[in-house]
Amino acid sequence: MAFEFPIHIYWEDTDAGGIVYYANYLRFFERARTEWLRAAGIHQRTMREQTGGMFVVAEASLKYLRPARLEDELIVTVQLQEAGRAGLLMAQQVLLTEPGTAARTLLCEGSVRAAWVDAQTLKPKRLPSDILQKLNP
Amino acid sequence: MAFEFPIHIYWEDTDAGGIVYYANYLRFFERARTEWLRAAGIHQRTMREQTGGMFVVAEASLKYLRPARLEDELIVTVQLQEAGRAGLLMAQQVLLTEPGTAARTLLCEGSVRAAWVDAQTLKPKRLPSDILQKLNP
Amino acid sequence: MAFEFPIHIYWEDTDAGGIVYYANYLRFFERARTEWLRAAGIHQRTMREQTGGMFVVAEASLKYLRPARLEDELIVTVQLQEAGRAGLLMAQQVLLTEPGTAARTLLCEGSVRAAWVDAQTLKPKRLPSDILQKLNP
Amino acid sequence: MAFEFPIHIYWEDTDAGGIVYYANYLRFFERARTEWLRAAGIHQRTMREQTGGMFVVAEASLKYLRPARLEDELIVTVQLQEAGRAGLLMAQQVLLTEPGTAARTLLCEGSVRAAWVDAQTLKPKRLPSDILQKLNP
Repeated sequence: MAFEFPIHIYWEDTDAGGIVYYANYLRFFERARTEWLRAAGIHQRTMREQTGGMFVVAEASLKYLRPARLEDELIVTVQLQEAGRAGLLMAQQVLLTEPGTAARTLLCEGSVRAAWVDAQTLKPKRLPSDILQKLNP
Repeated sequence: MAFEFPIHIYWEDTDAGGIVYYANYLRFFERARTEWLRAAGIHQRTMREQTGGMFVVAEASLKYLRPARLEDELIVTVQLQEAGRAGLLMAQQVLLTEPGTAARTLLCEGSVRAAWVDAQTLKPKRLPSDILQKLNP
Repeated sequence: MAFEFPIHIYWEDTDAGGIVYYANYLRFFERARTEWLRAAGIHQRTMREQTGGMFVVAEASLKYLRPARLEDELIVTVQLQEAGRAGLLMAQQVLLTEPGTAARTLLCEGSVRAAWVDAQTLKPKRLPSDILQKLNP
Repeated sequence: MAFEFPIHIYWEDTDAGGIVYYANYLRFFERARTEWLRAAGIHQRTMREQTGGMFVVAEASLKYLRPARLEDELIVTVQLQEAGRAGLLMAQQVLLTEPGTAARTLLCEGSVRAAWVDAQTLKPKRLPSDILQKLNP
């Protein structure tokens, strides 16, 4: 089961092509990952203050299938693929919803690999086991 | 004499209205202020490491006269209005240029008040005198 | 009574100062205005397709009182001050909430004047009366 | 030989981790592609007005090797890998420069596939041959 987070498209998200600017899908991906972590009881700001570590993205890839437009109502998903001491691999999708129906159209899909690093030195650290446990109950 | 900094408009700057998104003029203002400080020998990252202080914007106001569009070539200006131990007040403009001519059209103008604060506590600090001297030769 | 819209702060909203980047408050203001219009039955994309008109911001001003940080939970308000055939004037605030309490701290306040223009020519148009009626029941 | 475009890092580009926000590398990639097209005599706004077509990104992938920070001076490259009637495939890199030296450190690399579509319907169109000729002299 993938985690789902709803997003509305605002003027800020679009470009002069009349569609959502391609880099913004990585922002939507990151919002959904943040909410997924919060839902698991992981607050990144608190984690950083307590452990001195934070997630940084090491790899990302996206396929853009259909464009999103102003005022669209989207669902962004997060599906954990791998979790280890080095970090996480997540599959993510952006789906267009039709208000009042169950229809969903896949607009964009991709994957993101996040590494856990020391917030000061940005050197890789081992992901704290309590974070792993919260993600793999 | 105002400091001038050139900016090209890219897809990321525009919105579905076909024009530059209104919040982005504050980004352009800040780029020009950063380059103006650099031209005066003030590097904000170094200043922060050396003094523990940084600028934060306390007030901003903008008037949008004409829109900018994709691939426009703009000039962003910075004119220091006030400089004191509490911070700086700057007048800024965004002008559209016509390549190959001297013509300039005012698109946006505004003012920005920046305060100097402790980078950790964000509490007001007195602006270091060497910064003031670099800005007021 | 002001319209209220909740916003979470994500990594994309912050800068290396550890706080929300000053231009992003205009993005938050615009999200809240869009949701306020939607709540009044005004969908900007539909309006544009039906009337050929759209809102553009003519003036904006902001005062930054306290910074917002990563994972803060904010309320953005919209209070209509004036509504006429030329456009709208709105007062807006950004408030920090404390989860589990009723406490709210004012972080940023400002005003935005929006004009109604022809979406092609960007020339001023008279705001359609049905929009005015929806905003002034 | 790759096309090279310089970029300075401003506050807007960074996040509370003290480094450049991961989505912004796609913005840097796009700026460099736009300047590379301009250098080849291809102005996207003009092309759209003349041909009714525009580029949209179909696929993007990135590897983040080292972070960029505030005030860094970067070079963004564009290397055309494939050019056909369906669109373009480009390899791109972001390199950190050391002012006053020839040293360059690879921070981020990736690839972007751009398709040519009808600007209204967003349906695939054949890339105009004069664009292809300008890119493959």
